[in-house]
Amino acid sequence: MTTPVTEQKVEGDQVVNPWEVSAKDGGKIDYDKLIEKFGCQRIDQTLVDRVERLTSRPAHIFLRRGVFFAHRDFIEIMDLYENGKKFYLYTGRGPSSEALHLGHLVPFMFTKYLQDAFKVPLVIQLTDDEKCMWKNLSVEECKRLARENAKDIIACGFDITRTFIFSDFNFIGGAFYENMVRVSKCVTFNKVVGIFGFTNEDHIGKISFPPVQAVPSFPSSFPHLFSNTKNLRCLIPCAIDQDPYFRMTRDVAPRLGYNKPSLIESSFFPALQGETGKMSASDPNSAIYVTDSSKDIKNKINKYAFSGGQDSIENHRKFGANLEVDIPYKYLSFFLDDDAELEHIKTEYGAGRMLTGEVKKRLIDVLSELVERHRRARAAVTEEMVDAFMAVRPLPNMFS
Amino acid sequence: MTTPVTEQKVEGDQVVNPWEVSAKDGGKIDYDKLIEKFGCQRIDQTLVDRVERLTSRPAHIFLRRGVFFAHRDFIEIMDLYENGKKFYLYTGRGPSSEALHLGHLVPFMFTKYLQDAFKVPLVIQLTDDEKCMWKNLSVEECKRLARENAKDIIACGFDITRTFIFSDFNFIGGAFYENMVRVSKCVTFNKVVGIFGFTNEDHIGKISFPPVQAVPSFPSSFPHLFSNTKNLRCLIPCAIDQDPYFRMTRDVAPRLGYNKPSLIESSFFPALQGETGKMSASDPNSAIYVTDSSKDIKNKINKYAFSGGQDSIENHRKFGANLEVDIPYKYLSFFLDDDAELEHIKTEYGAGRMLTGEVKKRLIDVLSELVERHRRARAAVTEEMVDAFMAVRPLPNMFS
Repeated sequence: MTTPVTEQKVEGDQVVNPWEVSAKDGGKIDYDKLIEKFGCQRIDQTLVDRVERLTSRPAHIFLRRGVFFAHRDFIEIMDLYENGKKFYLYTGRGPSSEALHLGHLVPFMFTKYLQDAFKVPLVIQLTDDEKCMWKNLSVEECKRLARENAKDIIACGFDITRTFIFSDFNFIGGAFYENMVRVSKCVTFNKVVGIFGFTNEDHIGKISFPPVQAVPSFPSSFPHLFSNTKNLRCLIPCAIDQDPYFRMTRDVAPRLGYNKPSLIESSFFPALQGETGKMSASDPNSAIYVTDSSKDIKNKINKYAFSGGQDSIENHRKFGANLEVDIPYKYLSFFLDDDAELEHIKTEYGAGRMLTGEVKKRLIDVLSELVERHRRARAAVTEEMVDAFMAVRPLPNMFS
Repeated sequence: MTTPVTEQKVEGDQVVNPWEVSAKDGGKIDYDKLIEKFGCQRIDQTLVDRVERLTSRPAHIFLRRGVFFAHRDFIEIMDLYENGKKFYLYTGRGPSSEALHLGHLVPFMFTKYLQDAFKVPLVIQLTDDEKCMWKNLSVEECKRLARENAKDIIACGFDITRTFIFSDFNFIGGAFYENMVRVSKCVTFNKVVGIFGFTNEDHIGKISFPPVQAVPSFPSSFPHLFSNTKNLRCLIPCAIDQDPYFRMTRDVAPRLGYNKPSLIESSFFPALQGETGKMSASDPNSAIYVTDSSKDIKNKINKYAFSGGQDSIENHRKFGANLEVDIPYKYLSFFLDDDAELEHIKTEYGAGRMLTGEVKKRLIDVLSELVERHRRARAAVTEEMVDAFMAVRPLPNMFS
């Protein structure tokens, strides 16, 4: 059998799909090319301003700093919102490991902001079935990981009156399964080969999974939530590597008489070693974990965070830091909320008046505080709270 | 893309799979070749005698007349039964049409006998999801057909204290879905191409379905029934065209630590026009339906039942009927319970002393009575009874 050629591979050496993110020749991901190839739109300042106006609050740091940089039909969602029409949010996670790293938190922190700002309901899918099929993990282990990950997600501060968290193993059935079948009918094997790069040697679990991630985009999959709001629109905040799932979903939706989901998509949170891909759960030194102690964080940043500073103090004072590749600066741009301070660091560090050590120290403080806050919040999440978030129930505070 | 070559097609012109049954050059299905190709065993008289001894009752007409003619590990099931170990039965139907024909009743009539004779629990799967994916039918229509078909199945006389009927759309989820995922992980696309003849142009619904039909073979798919009997064996009565599903299931089972299901398999109930395949729901004149009136039955048999009698009375008296191709005689061998009378017809009709008209008349009587009995039984099936059979519940009379 010939190995099928994937969409990703014919168009260049940059590979971005749900299982692989790698830039051309070990360089940086070219997000402009990705936008062009995937066919989504860039988020511009006008759109950020509009979100601020509609929500009467400053845009989230990830929106103002361009971490969430691309979208599909987000303008349409804003048009409807401006006319009094609410929407719902859908995001998720594949629970393949117990400890989340900072990159995993990015979509959830942003989703919490969207929920608070727009006052809309949210469904969070934990694809324990996917991880069971992709990784060498048992059903039981994936279900356990889903529940552990749910605690980290809840710790991000979601509003229980507007949030339904579910794991596929616990929730699939009924109207959700009916939509899985409807989607499956519309997608050929050739099509998933084109979108996801499957081969004939892949098992049928992988091949049958894409509809599972597609159907939370349709409100009819959640009759306990959306029984009277069939035309409710869906907005999906996610990293752009998940785009293939939703290209497929958007392709299928009109044939089922459903609305296409809208997307708001982020770039990848870079590894400590440098910005050539996203952080990897398989290399513990490539990422800061929410379980790391302040001492771990200090050691990892001092030891592994790729610096754009020069090789000697003399040269650094002379040429300044290369901010394009500097990971401490990049991480601060994700998490240092004070725009003036970040601007100050940019200027001083870029000009060589501030040293890498100083920037790293500031980052260690920022991340230690963030991780410590998360740790405290997670410790307060009880099993009863997990049960409550995952209970199949109408949401009491859906749109108010 | 090249069209994959199927197991069925490389080994000859005879095609038998869940979607197609056709003999070589328009002739009869060669069941000996099928047994050899599929790798199952023939049921011999010793085994029939043993079943009679173990159950203290005469073998069912379909067993004694060789309608159920092949098996996989049925001897092992009987060995265990003789040592006091019970098993459970699993059969099913794809609800693609409202009216069942006699061929559809064959596995259910036989399964009822097995349930009564061995006093064992039974699960009946209605694959409404399969029919939604294969036919141009909506989810809603398939669910309706499943419920209508359940009434015909219940009318066959199953014991509600030992029988759980479920439709995939209503039941899939939980432990059943977990087993679907476990099976899916073990089967590659190449494998299902080999077994079922799928192509790259087939939609992923078809490709993802085989595990759905596989997992009722495992007691852990029904925790409400079999929570304390993980090693319970499963016996599947079905027509031999379903064998591919269970070859796949038996291949996968040991890798999951599960027992392989056993099978007891029937030949096809022939079309009125002759024994070249099975009856077709798409040609109403190829079959006797359980909804046909006595007048319909009389007309269809007189007009369409292929006769092995000679073209003139003179020749018939001289050469006798060709019983090998005679449909009225064949049908009587399925449904005329009196062995002595069938033997008499065989002798007299075969020798030309009995005419086709007389044999057809006897068949019309036998089938009219059968269909009338079914109609009365079905009319007595209430919606509440359907709910009761399909309720997810422990069976009160599981093994007693």
